[in-house]
Amino acid sequence: MGEQTVKLEKKPKIIATTSVVGPKEGQGPLKDYFDIILKDDKNGQDSYEKAESSIMDLAIKETIKKAGLQDKDINYLFAGDLLNQTISSNYVARGLDIPFFGLYGACSTMSESLSLAAMTLDGGFADYALACTSSHFSSAERQYRYPLEFGSQRAKTAQWTVTGSGCMLLGLNGDYPEVTYITTGKVKDYGINDANNMGAAMAPAAVSTISQHFKDTGFKVEDYDLIMSGDLGKVGKSITEEMLLEEYDLDIRSIYMDGGDSIFDDSEQKTESGGSGCGCSAVVGCGYVYKKMREGKFKRIMIVSTGALMSPTSSYQGETIPGIAHAVTIEYNKEGR
Amino acid sequence: MGEQTVKLEKKPKIIATTSVVGPKEGQGPLKDYFDIILKDDKNGQDSYEKAESSIMDLAIKETIKKAGLQDKDINYLFAGDLLNQTISSNYVARGLDIPFFGLYGACSTMSESLSLAAMTLDGGFADYALACTSSHFSSAERQYRYPLEFGSQRAKTAQWTVTGSGCMLLGLNGDYPEVTYITTGKVKDYGINDANNMGAAMAPAAVSTISQHFKDTGFKVEDYDLIMSGDLGKVGKSITEEMLLEEYDLDIRSIYMDGGDSIFDDSEQKTESGGSGCGCSAVVGCGYVYKKMREGKFKRIMIVSTGALMSPTSSYQGETIPGIAHAVTIEYNKEGR
Repeated sequence: MGEQTVKLEKKPKIIATTSVVGPKEGQGPLKDYFDIILKDDKNGQDSYEKAESSIMDLAIKETIKKAGLQDKDINYLFAGDLLNQTISSNYVARGLDIPFFGLYGACSTMSESLSLAAMTLDGGFADYALACTSSHFSSAERQYRYPLEFGSQRAKTAQWTVTGSGCMLLGLNGDYPEVTYITTGKVKDYGINDANNMGAAMAPAAVSTISQHFKDTGFKVEDYDLIMSGDLGKVGKSITEEMLLEEYDLDIRSIYMDGGDSIFDDSEQKTESGGSGCGCSAVVGCGYVYKKMREGKFKRIMIVSTGALMSPTSSYQGETIPGIAHAVTIEYNKEGR
Repeated sequence: MGEQTVKLEKKPKIIATTSVVGPKEGQGPLKDYFDIILKDDKNGQDSYEKAESSIMDLAIKETIKKAGLQDKDINYLFAGDLLNQTISSNYVARGLDIPFFGLYGACSTMSESLSLAAMTLDGGFADYALACTSSHFSSAERQYRYPLEFGSQRAKTAQWTVTGSGCMLLGLNGDYPEVTYITTGKVKDYGINDANNMGAAMAPAAVSTISQHFKDTGFKVEDYDLIMSGDLGKVGKSITEEMLLEEYDLDIRSIYMDGGDSIFDDSEQKTESGGSGCGCSAVVGCGYVYKKMREGKFKRIMIVSTGALMSPTSSYQGETIPGIAHAVTIEYNKEGR
């Protein structure tokens, strides 16, 4: 239906989720909704990269266990992360007996993996599929910006990469939140070239995908109880609200949250514009949003994970930062059951 | 059907392909099958990374043009490459008006993207989808190994990253080769830690996926006219043949080729074990294999692109190299029409 949106006829169900976060995220405003809060952000590993991999591994294994399933029951794992060659995901997949599709969508990977997992179930190719992503403050910071020991000053527009992993397991049966629509994003680039202002670089992609979703489906803003963008942070969130209002006459402010804006309390945690990273929309989606849906608080929500598709090399070579956003609609009518 | 294989009921058709290669590939044994042979491996760009992106852009645009379509007709682009944060693909997608799913499967990306593109068509989510990948000798070499100026000596097991891009456009109608089965790989790691011997690291994954395909489908080796692995090179090809024979009693030698083994002539081109890179199986698949199918030479073939899922960081940290392989079966009975 419409240019960029498909409707899922079988409505694949999100039968289990797990959110694992680091100590800092575990002290933030959403702490009550995370499943596992680590005491040590190295999770007992000898490098931050291995720590990130071990956190994703934990999220996946816990999710499979919650559903009472085993690796061999799962048809596909869709996963990706921020590290070069997506090694967090690859080394997790090595230890699992599950066919694996590796993704790179930067911080859009949670809704990218969820989109593809839902389509494989809806298309009749799978009974169960996993969607998963992770990020880690320390592995991301040293890859994308500066060595931690450098102690560089942080800009007010800077974001803090979330340490965490979120995993969703999709199946076809049972009384669970259902994936009903998928709006796949196009790459948008408004010429931002400041890697400390990624929210601004990703906002136009979020605006494009959200507005296209309403155009394609005919839904109105009031049909939604919540729209959650991934990790635009305070700056990107505010740009998104303004652009949607001015360019598309869509006022989403009363139902709009951003994972990056919500996961930390800047006044106490010094995170400037907020959280970022693949793990951000993953843990907020698997934690707060999914649990509130199960409680019956939200009937129809949209997760719009947003990704900045540059690399340090492309930035050095003078390229601007392209963004992408994928939207997934999830519905759950607790009372109607 | 079976553990890792799905059968596609609508049999999505590969309605157009384009292969673009660099000058060295254009002097190799498969030169007559490539659509575009560049005279300059920088393709007029000021960096190798931008060159790689421009080559993929050319492959995609040429493919869309061949089919008489426009961007707006295409529902999805599935693409990935070897560069950190898959920037070749991301910057190409920025210039296209097509919803984009970014992938990272290292050199397995051609059959990964083809698998997902075919599933979206077969599942009813798309009328047209593109599957594409690229690699470039000079952008890969400096990212993964040494600066080119260093002039490092090459081991006999080393492979030469292919400069090129291959793109396939899938549709639902017309008299074209059809995607009929998809066998999705699991990650396999046999403990190889030598980044100059990637064929050996990837061979167990190829063996796992090929043997599983036969188990899942009930096909026999003689049901195939060709099995093409991606870029195992001479060393990995020979390991694959031996392992399939010894462990699974499958003798594929008479119908087996490897893209990496075929694309260069080592005696003249000094490429040691052969070609590698995402672009290798892409250009051999889009060039030689697809064109031979259209001519009626092959009725049923399997493309098994193979990927090594390590990164320089994981190698420095002492990790071994995990491999993955995805198989796609393509059928075309020219005489039966």
